[in-house]
Amino acid sequence: MTTGIIRVLTSDDPGQVDGHGRLLAERLGLRTVSRCIPGQPRGIHDDASERSAGPKIVELARALERDGADTLIISCAADPALAATRAAVAVPVIGAGTAAAGVALGLGTRIGVIGIRDEVPPAVAALLGPHYAGHRRPEGVHSTVDLAAPHGPAAVLAAAGELVAAGADALVLACTGLTTLGIAPRLERELGVPAVDAVLAAGLLALRPR
Amino acid sequence: MTTGIIRVLTSDDPGQVDGHGRLLAERLGLRTVSRCIPGQPRGIHDDASERSAGPKIVELARALERDGADTLIISCAADPALAATRAAVAVPVIGAGTAAAGVALGLGTRIGVIGIRDEVPPAVAALLGPHYAGHRRPEGVHSTVDLAAPHGPAAVLAAAGELVAAGADALVLACTGLTTLGIAPRLERELGVPAVDAVLAAGLLALRPR
Repeated sequence: MTTGIIRVLTSDDPGQVDGHGRLLAERLGLRTVSRCIPGQPRGIHDDASERSAGPKIVELARALERDGADTLIISCAADPALAATRAAVAVPVIGAGTAAAGVALGLGTRIGVIGIRDEVPPAVAALLGPHYAGHRRPEGVHSTVDLAAPHGPAAVLAAAGELVAAGADALVLACTGLTTLGIAPRLERELGVPAVDAVLAAGLLALRPR
Repeated sequence: MTTGIIRVLTSDDPGQVDGHGRLLAERLGLRTVSRCIPGQPRGIHDDASERSAGPKIVELARALERDGADTLIISCAADPALAATRAAVAVPVIGAGTAAAGVALGLGTRIGVIGIRDEVPPAVAALLGPHYAGHRRPEGVHSTVDLAAPHGPAAVLAAAGELVAAGADALVLACTGLTTLGIAPRLERELGVPAVDAVLAAGLLALRPR
């Protein structure tokens, strides 16, 4: 059992490339192999970079399947190319965003979403349907770099607090930069609702007994 | 970390009472404690028995929380008293039916449901929303006893096959009798789509790292 982790950015730093896989190994005991799409050192950050990434994600998925991965994770909360990738390979393909939304639906009924763009990831909102309870971009946060800045954690906590005050009974952390920040336990402790990390949610679904 | 398993039937056979908890220990490594609601040896089998079970489920949840459970599972795919139980305790409460629906939404986009009543469990259909792709009751199956009869497994496979032929790309097994039957791996192998067991899905959500 090997889970292939598709990183939707380009890096030759193994520590960065393996970051999500290492977390899933440590926290869930998953055996993983991580690879990057080529030619996108800034990852996916707008519509054009998302379009350009799509065929590369599909190609990388095919390669990971050929090399023996029995489950694939597209490790980005925007779920880029999820449908196309599912159509291209025979193994299960899990998108981090929809995985987090699905897990959150099992834990609450009014789901708030925290992300770093102005808009909620469309696939996440579509999955939550009538259970979608709103989206917040933390103030002053426009990229994963901002999350790691001194003001990042407090801004995330404030945004999450607004969603809970407005009635959210579970949260989706819809950016894997929030995974790197490791802020979910603090949100759960201080706000008293489940805060579902997208990478860990994807790993949980990959762990599903079969 | 102890997960309290609420069995919505009455039994003094420890093997039966602990069945779901034992499965979750063996397959997912969860530490569980299982207890039954009183006075319902036939469990929940119609609307009246579901109404009667509701306050007992809430009371049992309070007792398990007092005794140290940090997560609760209502181990029935109909999710009886889920909202009332969530309102009554401070720990996360997971319903087996909605857990399976949430997990299935992370694995596919057109979700078929197999159950033992004529109607899909309302909470499961509501959660799946536009992704709900239909429900089948296996022919000749009206109770968990029928599932265990010689014709049971073939009837389940036929019903699941109809759903997949009609376009379902993932299945929810919306009766814990299907857990006991252990038929999910066979459905996945023969039909090529994820078949989400309700008890295991609930256990997966209880396992979520925090």
